[in-house]
Amino acid sequence: MEKDCEFCNVTAIIRGDALEKVEQQLHGIGVNGISVMRVKGYGEYANFYSPEGLTSHVRVEIFTAARAAETIAQTIMDAACSGVPGDGIVAVQPVDKVYRIRLRAAVEPDAL
Amino acid sequence: MEKDCEFCNVTAIIRGDALEKVEQQLHGIGVNGISVMRVKGYGEYANFYSPEGLTSHVRVEIFTAARAAETIAQTIMDAACSGVPGDGIVAVQPVDKVYRIRLRAAVEPDAL
Amino acid sequence: MEKDCEFCNVTAIIRGDALEKVEQQLHGIGVNGISVMRVKGYGEYANFYSPEGLTSHVRVEIFTAARAAETIAQTIMDAACSGVPGDGIVAVQPVDKVYRIRLRAAVEPDAL
Repeated sequence: MEKDCEFCNVTAIIRGDALEKVEQQLHGIGVNGISVMRVKGYGEYANFYSPEGLTSHVRVEIFTAARAAETIAQTIMDAACSGVPGDGIVAVQPVDKVYRIRLRAAVEPDAL
Repeated sequence: MEKDCEFCNVTAIIRGDALEKVEQQLHGIGVNGISVMRVKGYGEYANFYSPEGLTSHVRVEIFTAARAAETIAQTIMDAACSGVPGDGIVAVQPVDKVYRIRLRAAVEPDAL
Repeated sequence: MEKDCEFCNVTAIIRGDALEKVEQQLHGIGVNGISVMRVKGYGEYANFYSPEGLTSHVRVEIFTAARAAETIAQTIMDAACSGVPGDGIVAVQPVDKVYRIRLRAAVEPDAL
């Protein structure tokens, strides 16, 4: 466990149809910045539903203060869980530093 | 080197035409989840082949137990190496925690 | 702060129309590999300009030696700053290891 970083990257691979609910719930807990991109992937049951084993998922990425990472991960899980294989994962990675481009300055962890 | 993390993120930027072989080889060594997205980029020989210097590559991302990262990186290199510039890179990053959304719970490293 | 890693991942979320200048400036300081992908996201002023609160941004990712991360972050900020909300962020994350696929070998930090 990286306990020294004050920032984290929370990356979630979720079903495309779970995105709207995830966005709403994250907004509800005050997350003020997310990036969303489409991905193809295979997970727990590769080759099960689709001929080539690849299904359309979405990758959601959030840069946040380390103290908020656990809550964000839990919020994503609550919003994206359908209980069947393919629901995806959430990963928390250490981040050394975050800069806000508008201010051309490093962000303090308290400001995220 | 981050030796404390039990999980890793293995990210590879590879040629689009190497993806199928990479996927097959990763599946062959038991990797049970990958995310694939298209990227544009320039690498060792920017501006060499294409007018704007950007070629189409693919970004492959795998969240895995730390003990498997080296094998996964080696497998990707073996599958994606053509020996000419533009083959891409593999990067291994530390991951603090991984959650499985279906179970709404943190994953044990042994389970990945 | 992760001081032990010799490599870093510099990820920037910038406006799409800032990409060309960012690429030029990064090339100018000798950055020899970037990956670019389109993302949707909301930042400081979600729901302000667009009906659904999502604007088109670009995600730029660079794997580099740790000693170069600060300069790269500064270069991106200088090139992408317009001074208004939505300019985006830059994040620096630790990277354990980088491999060059063409050589099937780990990269020395001095070589990046």
